[in-house]
Amino acid sequence: MAARALQTLLLCNVALLLQLLSPCTGLSLDTVREFLTGEEDTIVFSLIERARYPLNRPAYDPAYLGFGPRHDASFAELFVRESEAVQSKVRFIHPRPAGRYQSLLEIPFFAYRVPFAMAPPFNFTSELYPAPAFVNVNDAIWSTYFNDLLPLLAKNGSDDGNYAVTVDTDLACLQVLSRRINYGRFVAETKFRGDQQTYTSLIQSKDRDALMKLLTSEAQEDVVKRRVQKKAVVFGQSITLDGPIETDARNSSQAKFKVDPSVVYKLYDQWVIPLTKQVEVEYLLHRLD
Amino acid sequence: MAARALQTLLLCNVALLLQLLSPCTGLSLDTVREFLTGEEDTIVFSLIERARYPLNRPAYDPAYLGFGPRHDASFAELFVRESEAVQSKVRFIHPRPAGRYQSLLEIPFFAYRVPFAMAPPFNFTSELYPAPAFVNVNDAIWSTYFNDLLPLLAKNGSDDGNYAVTVDTDLACLQVLSRRINYGRFVAETKFRGDQQTYTSLIQSKDRDALMKLLTSEAQEDVVKRRVQKKAVVFGQSITLDGPIETDARNSSQAKFKVDPSVVYKLYDQWVIPLTKQVEVEYLLHRLD
Repeated sequence: MAARALQTLLLCNVALLLQLLSPCTGLSLDTVREFLTGEEDTIVFSLIERARYPLNRPAYDPAYLGFGPRHDASFAELFVRESEAVQSKVRFIHPRPAGRYQSLLEIPFFAYRVPFAMAPPFNFTSELYPAPAFVNVNDAIWSTYFNDLLPLLAKNGSDDGNYAVTVDTDLACLQVLSRRINYGRFVAETKFRGDQQTYTSLIQSKDRDALMKLLTSEAQEDVVKRRVQKKAVVFGQSITLDGPIETDARNSSQAKFKVDPSVVYKLYDQWVIPLTKQVEVEYLLHRLD
Repeated sequence: MAARALQTLLLCNVALLLQLLSPCTGLSLDTVREFLTGEEDTIVFSLIERARYPLNRPAYDPAYLGFGPRHDASFAELFVRESEAVQSKVRFIHPRPAGRYQSLLEIPFFAYRVPFAMAPPFNFTSELYPAPAFVNVNDAIWSTYFNDLLPLLAKNGSDDGNYAVTVDTDLACLQVLSRRINYGRFVAETKFRGDQQTYTSLIQSKDRDALMKLLTSEAQEDVVKRRVQKKAVVFGQSITLDGPIETDARNSSQAKFKVDPSVVYKLYDQWVIPLTKQVEVEYLLHRLD
């Protein structure tokens, strides 16, 4: 049994190595754009779901759980830790990302050594370069989400006690924001391959500012921000059988949206896009390691 | 410590009892309708999220997990069991529904005795009558979801290995369908209170068919089915910055929707509405116990 576990451990690592060294196929500006556009819908859906609940402050207050060995963590943190542990489970204990986190698209907020086993590893292919494949800004996403976004999102109203349900919707928001923002690795790899010469020289001179400038397209970012705002309008209104569909928050000041469309614009403007570019720059700076 | 645990255990049961016996306030045909309409959006969102992934058949095949003590369960079943365990955690071990499942809106698919503790109990109020408060059709929802709905929902394409992510979207669908369908208890309670005399006589004669007839409004059901189909059209299309919003699947045969709107119509027509009415009838039959 120990021999079998060791064999599987070796196989896992070989599989991961093969994944990271596998031929770079399937990544193009079109597939990248398609993925990012699809994630917009998921992000808006998940924000709308969170906005159904009041803030439910005790869920985020370490004092709420009171005494005991876990007294320094909030309910939300423990909930995310334990949910990520469930979503990591693979057949054998091994020190590599497991389960949900075998996919390079998914990065846990709390890295885990999984206590026991649920499923065999899957041989994912990867388009990322090995050295910076695990670049991520999950810490920034975590603090931005709870400190900046959540207060703008939660429904007004008193504590309703639905902490697990509420935090489950937080987890959905965190996971899709993490996947979307850390996808900057894939964006950077695609752009690098499209113009290796320019990027190589900027990476060699460690010129962060020039890289950031090269990665920035204000016109494209403007389209994205206005599109997610429109999605918040379309997905966040009350649909009736015969009524018209609003498409512009400015035309419908009377309408009530489940999430304020300007908050979704701000989320992209101030956090999603800047953090994604931060991931891109970090990835590129290690692209030649 | 043991005394404190016992004290809390007693408090939990008293809290649950108080919850079930608390004055019946806040429930009206308007609040019931508002809740059910809101759940439609969540259901359509969760179906759209599941439809992003292929079927990923191994996740549902007990053979996939191979040997071991858990060989008779599928990855999906274990994933749901363990996620529900996380979502149940309360401070002390006690045999009552806990955590997420303290709320009478939420019913687990796998009942749990929680191994350890995360949060103190919250004193929910309830509008349900105690005897039939735990009526539910989760078994039927489980089998309908996996056998009937999922094959109509999953994206065409080969296994992509994202089993945990995929099953996480299944769990979201299952949980909202469970909440929506088992909300039939609240619908039944509201209708009972609106016409106690008629209902009492039908309940006393155990006349299932007459109860079902009394609970049925074909005109209202038709509005609901067509509205959820419209929501699938509006929420499931690709939104562009300048393009129009489709509102009718029949006008847009060329458009591709993320979930076939006719599947959402069928979901309500064949499963959600009939199962809800089944819950209503079961609840009413025990309303005088």
